Amino acid sequence: MPNIRLDIEYDGTNFAGWQIQKNGRSVQEEIEKAIQKIFQASIRVHGGGRTDTGVHARGQVANIFIEKNINIALLAKQLTAVMPHDVVVKKTSQVSHDFHARHSAKERRYRYCISRSSTAVQRNYCWQVFSQLDVDAMNECANEILGEHDFQSFCKTIAEAGHYRCNVHTANWVEVAQMLEFEITANRFLHGMVRALVGTMVNVGRGHTLLLDFKSILDSKDRANAGMSAPAKGLFLEEIVY
Amino acid sequence: MPNIRLDIEYDGTNFAGWQIQKNGRSVQEEIEKAIQKIFQASIRVHGGGRTDTGVHARGQVANIFIEKNINIALLAKQLTAVMPHDVVVKKTSQVSHDFHARHSAKERRYRYCISRSSTAVQRNYCWQVFSQLDVDAMNECANEILGEHDFQSFCKTIAEAGHYRCNVHTANWVEVAQMLEFEITANRFLHGMVRALVGTMVNVGRGHTLLLDFKSILDSKDRANAGMSAPAKGLFLEEIVY
Repeated sequence: MPNIRLDIEYDGTNFAGWQIQKNGRSVQEEIEKAIQKIFQASIRVHGGGRTDTGVHARGQVANIFIEKNINIALLAKQLTAVMPHDVVVKKTSQVSHDFHARHSAKERRYRYCISRSSTAVQRNYCWQVFSQLDVDAMNECANEILGEHDFQSFCKTIAEAGHYRCNVHTANWVEVAQMLEFEITANRFLHGMVRALVGTMVNVGRGHTLLLDFKSILDSKDRANAGMSAPAKGLFLEEIVY
Repeated sequence: MPNIRLDIEYDGTNFAGWQIQKNGRSVQEEIEKAIQKIFQASIRVHGGGRTDTGVHARGQVANIFIEKNINIALLAKQLTAVMPHDVVVKKTSQVSHDFHARHSAKERRYRYCISRSSTAVQRNYCWQVFSQLDVDAMNECANEILGEHDFQSFCKTIAEAGHYRCNVHTANWVEVAQMLEFEITANRFLHGMVRALVGTMVNVGRGHTLLLDFKSILDSKDRANAGMSAPAKGLFLEEIVY
């Protein structure tokens, strides 16, 4: 039974996140419905990253096992054709039987976009922050989280793996025209981690939190100490590396 | 009576274009309604570029005459605050009495975005073209239109000024990751001109129209000879230069 990898992009604006739930439209459900339409079969789609309500993805990955004899290269177009336009399957490819979109992932890359000026075109794809920001100070925060740390202070819920350690490979704030973008890669991410990190670093950028305090927040392992979560609409799951 | 310049951005997706009309929501109307709310006065907003249904703008300019004594620097925020989120006034500034957003314009800059891969996040902001495109040939077309030409072949309606001559200052196709972008500046643009140019150049890129034929189409001064209009959603009015 072939194991098929799906590379997926979605606009999170009108989704209650990736995962199927009782109340709310999920990406996973839309894909499973599309598969049902094409193959007349209920097939579970395993996603690589569980994005929250309103979070976008340009690099979501999922895998499915399909019994039927199919043209795998054509499947991406077939699925996209029967789905609403805010989700597309960019690519389909056969992978080894032990590939699991979630468990096989070695690294994930997220991007968070802040617009420094008011915007209509990008309004659903960034956080609009007009106050002055000290980007150097924010990059010093980014430096602080490099390597392995306990990120309990930046986690919304109880971590699934029983611990809060994540190994951050890269973390950078970059200014691109009127946008300020935070890009972070790590072996794993906790629930709400990027948005809590961004919210807290923006507090540092605004001068409301000192860099020294940022270090204390990280060390404290208490979510109550970190800043508010940055809005979901600025966050993109860009890539999952296997 | 101060003459005030408004720098405006809008997402054209849910607009029937810039200009007020009986049936359909227009950007001009939204701004006039916002001014009405703030000043309790009917004030005409003169726009610099008349974008069609579905066309976006990051650099629309308008001007208004306001009798009341107002804080001009604050006006942008006031207007944006009372408007729907798909239109924002980015900046307001006092200009000389003879400034007219439309008649004073010396150059306009448009950008047209084509996505080479299927996209959910950008679906309302580009034309998705998956067939192979010869970008070099498309750039040869762009070279052909540089300078002053009669663009009747690329005009939807009868030109207002009584002639179809436009002076194209720059025209380029540039590949940026999975996007292919056409940027064009000219002293003036005819109705539907950029979209007709893009549609016809894409025909050349696909190999359906020869470069030689593109030259003949330009010379023929007949819209029937040019290709179809590229979809509105890929077009952005980027800047008006005064």
